[in-house]
Amino acid sequence: MTVATSVQPQPLSSNELRTIHAYWRAANYLSVGQIYLLDNPLLQEPLKLEHIKPRLLGHWGTTPGLNFIYAHFNRIIKAQDLSVLYIAGPGHGGPGMVANTYLEGTYSELYPNISQDADGIQKLFKQFSFPGGIPSHAAPETPGSIHEGGELGYALVHAYGAAFDNPDLIVACVVGDGEAETGPLATSWHSNKFLNPARDGAVIPILHLNGYKIANPTVLARIPQHELESLFVGYGYKPYFVEGSDPETMHQLMASTLDTIIAEIKSIQREARVHGYQQRSPFPMIILRSPKGWTGPKVVDGKQMEGSWRSHQVPLAEMASHPEHVQLLETWMKSYKPEELFDDQGRLMPELAALAPAGDRRMGANPHANGGVLLRDLKLPDFRRYAVAVENPGTEMAESTRILGEFLRDVMQSNADSRNFRMMSPDENNSNRLGAVLEVTDRVSTAEILLTDDHIDPSGRVMEVLSEHMCQGWLEGYLLTGRHGFFSCYEAFIHIVDSMFNQHAKWLESCMDIPWRRPIASLNYLLTSHVWRQDHNGFSHQDPGFIDVVTNKKAKVVRVYLPPDANTLLSVADHCLRSRQYVNVIVAGKQPELQWLNMDAAVKHCTAGLGIWEWASNDHGGEPDVVMACAGDVPTLETLAAVDFLRSQFHDLKIRVVNVVDLMTLQPPSEHPHGISDSDFDSIFTSDKPIIFAFHGYPWLIHRLLYRRTNHNNLHVRGYKEEGTTTTPFDMVVLNDLDRFHLAQDVIDRVPKLSKIGAYVKQNIRDKLIEHQHYITTYGKDMPEVENWTWQAYRGAAKIDAASARSIDSSSDNPSQEGAEGTAHSRA
Amino acid sequence: MTVATSVQPQPLSSNELRTIHAYWRAANYLSVGQIYLLDNPLLQEPLKLEHIKPRLLGHWGTTPGLNFIYAHFNRIIKAQDLSVLYIAGPGHGGPGMVANTYLEGTYSELYPNISQDADGIQKLFKQFSFPGGIPSHAAPETPGSIHEGGELGYALVHAYGAAFDNPDLIVACVVGDGEAETGPLATSWHSNKFLNPARDGAVIPILHLNGYKIANPTVLARIPQHELESLFVGYGYKPYFVEGSDPETMHQLMASTLDTIIAEIKSIQREARVHGYQQRSPFPMIILRSPKGWTGPKVVDGKQMEGSWRSHQVPLAEMASHPEHVQLLETWMKSYKPEELFDDQGRLMPELAALAPAGDRRMGANPHANGGVLLRDLKLPDFRRYAVAVENPGTEMAESTRILGEFLRDVMQSNADSRNFRMMSPDENNSNRLGAVLEVTDRVSTAEILLTDDHIDPSGRVMEVLSEHMCQGWLEGYLLTGRHGFFSCYEAFIHIVDSMFNQHAKWLESCMDIPWRRPIASLNYLLTSHVWRQDHNGFSHQDPGFIDVVTNKKAKVVRVYLPPDANTLLSVADHCLRSRQYVNVIVAGKQPELQWLNMDAAVKHCTAGLGIWEWASNDHGGEPDVVMACAGDVPTLETLAAVDFLRSQFHDLKIRVVNVVDLMTLQPPSEHPHGISDSDFDSIFTSDKPIIFAFHGYPWLIHRLLYRRTNHNNLHVRGYKEEGTTTTPFDMVVLNDLDRFHLAQDVIDRVPKLSKIGAYVKQNIRDKLIEHQHYITTYGKDMPEVENWTWQAYRGAAKIDAASARSIDSSSDNPSQEGAEGTAHSRA
Repeated sequence: MTVATSVQPQPLSSNELRTIHAYWRAANYLSVGQIYLLDNPLLQEPLKLEHIKPRLLGHWGTTPGLNFIYAHFNRIIKAQDLSVLYIAGPGHGGPGMVANTYLEGTYSELYPNISQDADGIQKLFKQFSFPGGIPSHAAPETPGSIHEGGELGYALVHAYGAAFDNPDLIVACVVGDGEAETGPLATSWHSNKFLNPARDGAVIPILHLNGYKIANPTVLARIPQHELESLFVGYGYKPYFVEGSDPETMHQLMASTLDTIIAEIKSIQREARVHGYQQRSPFPMIILRSPKGWTGPKVVDGKQMEGSWRSHQVPLAEMASHPEHVQLLETWMKSYKPEELFDDQGRLMPELAALAPAGDRRMGANPHANGGVLLRDLKLPDFRRYAVAVENPGTEMAESTRILGEFLRDVMQSNADSRNFRMMSPDENNSNRLGAVLEVTDRVSTAEILLTDDHIDPSGRVMEVLSEHMCQGWLEGYLLTGRHGFFSCYEAFIHIVDSMFNQHAKWLESCMDIPWRRPIASLNYLLTSHVWRQDHNGFSHQDPGFIDVVTNKKAKVVRVYLPPDANTLLSVADHCLRSRQYVNVIVAGKQPELQWLNMDAAVKHCTAGLGIWEWASNDHGGEPDVVMACAGDVPTLETLAAVDFLRSQFHDLKIRVVNVVDLMTLQPPSEHPHGISDSDFDSIFTSDKPIIFAFHGYPWLIHRLLYRRTNHNNLHVRGYKEEGTTTTPFDMVVLNDLDRFHLAQDVIDRVPKLSKIGAYVKQNIRDKLIEHQHYITTYGKDMPEVENWTWQAYRGAAKIDAASARSIDSSSDNPSQEGAEGTAHSRA
Repeated sequence: MTVATSVQPQPLSSNELRTIHAYWRAANYLSVGQIYLLDNPLLQEPLKLEHIKPRLLGHWGTTPGLNFIYAHFNRIIKAQDLSVLYIAGPGHGGPGMVANTYLEGTYSELYPNISQDADGIQKLFKQFSFPGGIPSHAAPETPGSIHEGGELGYALVHAYGAAFDNPDLIVACVVGDGEAETGPLATSWHSNKFLNPARDGAVIPILHLNGYKIANPTVLARIPQHELESLFVGYGYKPYFVEGSDPETMHQLMASTLDTIIAEIKSIQREARVHGYQQRSPFPMIILRSPKGWTGPKVVDGKQMEGSWRSHQVPLAEMASHPEHVQLLETWMKSYKPEELFDDQGRLMPELAALAPAGDRRMGANPHANGGVLLRDLKLPDFRRYAVAVENPGTEMAESTRILGEFLRDVMQSNADSRNFRMMSPDENNSNRLGAVLEVTDRVSTAEILLTDDHIDPSGRVMEVLSEHMCQGWLEGYLLTGRHGFFSCYEAFIHIVDSMFNQHAKWLESCMDIPWRRPIASLNYLLTSHVWRQDHNGFSHQDPGFIDVVTNKKAKVVRVYLPPDANTLLSVADHCLRSRQYVNVIVAGKQPELQWLNMDAAVKHCTAGLGIWEWASNDHGGEPDVVMACAGDVPTLETLAAVDFLRSQFHDLKIRVVNVVDLMTLQPPSEHPHGISDSDFDSIFTSDKPIIFAFHGYPWLIHRLLYRRTNHNNLHVRGYKEEGTTTTPFDMVVLNDLDRFHLAQDVIDRVPKLSKIGAYVKQNIRDKLIEHQHYITTYGKDMPEVENWTWQAYRGAAKIDAASARSIDSSSDNPSQEGAEGTAHSRA
């Protein structure tokens, strides 16, 4: 089986060959210079130790390959007026990205201090991986980059995410052969079954087989050629091999290969765009086999350097103790003949500068790489239209996420023409009850579709694949190029992408300090099928710890919401879809559950972020004996059932119920912009009364958020403690002592006036729990008095009106402040 | 290209065909019964609603396929006396695993209450996914399982981990076509380049293409056959297709295929074992294409059920409102003809019972699936032999992990004959300075090896691949089958396996309540290349949050150690290698750093877990003005430098220095078995003096661990706050306010007697920081006074002797208590 062919063997004229090679040399020269030099940037005087950085930090090995690819894409962009986004999977080849964007002029436009002359080159060199300078990776600071590449594995999903709904875009995606060993990358190749050439752009994967990682050979470089080829044919590609080390041969081969595959891509696209998408054609890809550290020193200290793992970082080090290394470095850098590349003033020779594309066609200036520039607001229907009617709190049931699904359906519909909204889920869209969206679109697949399939179509805008990594990566790529999205996931398994979240949050954090980076749409998670309702699946599906990971990141980019019912969920979701530059985490259940707030009250409550539920409290006008706080839908239910029980037992007990939707309001305002002031906090939580806090997640998170608050010493938190397996909904909370009875017991134990009179009630509680245990192991379901409990007792007193959710003012952008007014969201 | 062949088309006699089919029907019958029935287990009376569970929880879709495979492995095990471990990737096919281990008798041996009669079957049915019963997945409770399969993606890495160093074992690994879409699974296929048939067992991957996930078709079921075949040829396998739905045809095809591939595996193994390993031969694998929900209802409510995503969970539901579903269920179950399978008493017919293998050959009884049974202690050299000589604290430098590497080298050597120890790393073994181990072994590869490679050999015991998922999964499989291992990883990127850690910890948690599960060796992580020393790589490589994830899990299975120097690292590592049933996380730097404790003091310090460093303190015999606590190597350095600075400035200031190695000692003993008592805590940390705590990780973790301690309100923690990028080592701590100067400032601000006299010193500090900033941006390295700082000033007073690390007693198994005595570790 020989798929690999290259049609036109010598497409470059001798002059083109000479200049493209010179351009590559210039990029290599500037790359080496960044890694090594403090001064003497053009080597106009003999290189001395004092010209060299005292600490050598950077990665050479992958860089010449990245530069080679960049130069050839420049050529074809210019020849065919293409829009190309360049993704460098081996992001630690940062010097190459910086060198190329400098050569093409974008770097100096964004950073005028790094001018296109000798002075600028000296600064360019010095700043690299230097205190006060720039990172060594293809970072947010790097023009044209949407991909850091420090944590490996996500180049290809980012590339596909960028290509979706960008029909005119080509994403050149370099995948290192080290990165190719990661799980996320290994599955990303299958993204081609989700790309529709009629409406999406193209991805050109370039597997860069330079054979070595830090210290080991790579797997893909050491399998027989027929296996390598089969693998990519199996993944659904048409692989083209570009192999060798002789520059002249390689330039011709790369140029002819690019000519061929661009033509193939255009043909596939034309076919689909003219006749409609019929069936998946294998897209071309490139396998570039070239030496690691190509053009670098061949041998150092008697050991092979070029073509070996030894050239991964700095091929020459310990300059002070090895003066011959200084000489070798000079020889190496002069091998690029800088005098032919730059004039005396350090300006790139005009005939070379002319090789780069112009304006936005430069890969460093492609607007898709600074997605905020292209970002347009979503058209959002008024979320209040989807409100569940709640006449009396706690009496009617609804599936909150199903209601949300109706809102999202109309978001999808409203933006169908803009083609800027997608929903991602690892095979859980319907399981998470967001199925309504399939009334207006389908799940996308460009693989074979059968009659038995349900709502699968090449034009679908719901993306489902059983890989959280792909969902996350596609969405990141989609957002970073200026679009919107929504990711629903089982709560426990979002941990699979903890590390991707970390990297995305760090990207957002860094961008906030880079003026030319425009804000992008927030990454919105809906975590459902949550810890408290894993009746089917048990212990392995129970982990509410993602929000612990999230709250470790900088406050300015993370938001966590725990809406207790459908109307609050709608309000929060609307807010998140309007927001920019955040990671929003919404945790909400999908099962039928009692509804608490009508829409007016929900909007007020969400805008405040937390508040007293006056209709559930009986301390009006006085001080409470106890504050019962709750965050999350199941803890809210249990708290209100505990209040019900307690009030039926102790008529003098004054209880204040506080519900928290926006978890970040709990922190001091010095720690998070949503944090409420200490005086507001004290007035709500009191400064000396016991607080019984029922929390959706691991209990320590609440302590961590609250340890600076006045009344922290009276705080008692109940949450998930890794107890639970096959059980019933109520038993799940009992196993974790988060149930109404344990909460009631906490109150009895902590309110002084109950200490003497509480004994009978505690015995009653004990008996209830034994009765419960017996009932569920006999009948397999919860006792009717638990299952059918509603907020009945206080129905008369519980009419909600506009004033009933007592709000506190917050100067920050709490959810739905803007949403409530129907205005656009302003960043905070 | 046609690789797929099956040699002998009709290997089963008509009687064999009849009985194997009956055995499969029995397993299917018992599987359906578990999902549905409360009573009437043999359907000896007409099925009524009250016989059916009120809540139907479980997954039917994948189960018949799992049962089919199990039955055929039974046959070949018996025919050829094989040792086979069965891994069910689709772990939610739990009913099938339970059914099969019940049929073969292992279930009743371990759970005598579930007897092999009608009464036992009734209990078997009722307990499934029922309160007080068993989980719906292939859980720790399931005999023969090392794999839960709730979180998908790890079946194949677990299988390979089990096969390594088990030459006589065959691991039958069912990979669901849903799971196959995950990243970890997609890269796991490449594990075959790390398996050496001369010393390792075999893995038979069975890709179960039943075409659907919860709601979507699967990717691999919808690509053309030639791509599917190419993909697995590309992965290095020889795929055999078993496709169809007619049972008779499928039984013959599966039997002939298994006959063929077992012969092929034996041939590959024989070749490698007789002549030595020469080159990688493609191992056979099976692609089983059969209908989802095979043999279940074909149509329900007018919709296709068998062969559709609709049969993923319960094909028939809502029994109360759909009486016809009760009838359908009865028809379905009776289609298996239970009366031919079980006698009146519910005993499996003897001719069917005779089909299962006997004793340990039963897959449910294979001892490798209960690895603790096979586990033998490691032979450990005396770690004290590797001690760094520390005559005076804080004056000499060492690379702690390099010292550890020497110890691990000899651990590797000492256990070479036992073949029960491997080290895993994602291409970072040498980068993490554990290179000494390559003096006695190599890095394993069974792919092509070139002369330029460094220490790569098919016999190597260091496993390096650029996939944290594979390292983790291999190690889990290796440990779960009764061996030992050590995983070193860059700290930031261990988050990639957060979710795998979660699942493994849950497995360990569950096992502790299952008496027949024997303890396995702990999973030992060394996290290095840590947050404070990412000079090369910057922001993306900075995340110390894995320990936050770890401390969310049950205290009885997690341990976190932060040894500040080489000798404490040795002591901790020795302890971890002796321990059982834990996840041990060790965080330690690889860079040259000052050494603090000689070995005697290190052993005492680690045994206590935390303690006062008397030689660094000057409050002897009295009360301190301030407690300066530290955990982690860099925070320890900064704290001692701050102490040095403060003592030079304030001669009357009484400072107590406390170092924490075992993070879990900080918690109350009620929360963690390592937690020290409140009285011990108060005597060390005082009950009212300011505590300035310099911490390696995110600062909130310390608050979370300490919020119940008396003196918490005086606690001020400094740690990592997501600040840092390209910088110098010292500047990194300055950016996070964790440096000696900020720590000193904290002391001045918090010790009342310094409030008036501290102004000049604070100004001095401010000037130092400005000077520092100017220096690093000019020279790119730290000021000499910082870089060259040592603990000089107190050299005279700082002689360490055996009494110098004032220990506190701890009744729990703190590190090296046993190690220090050289005795075996007893579980706690």
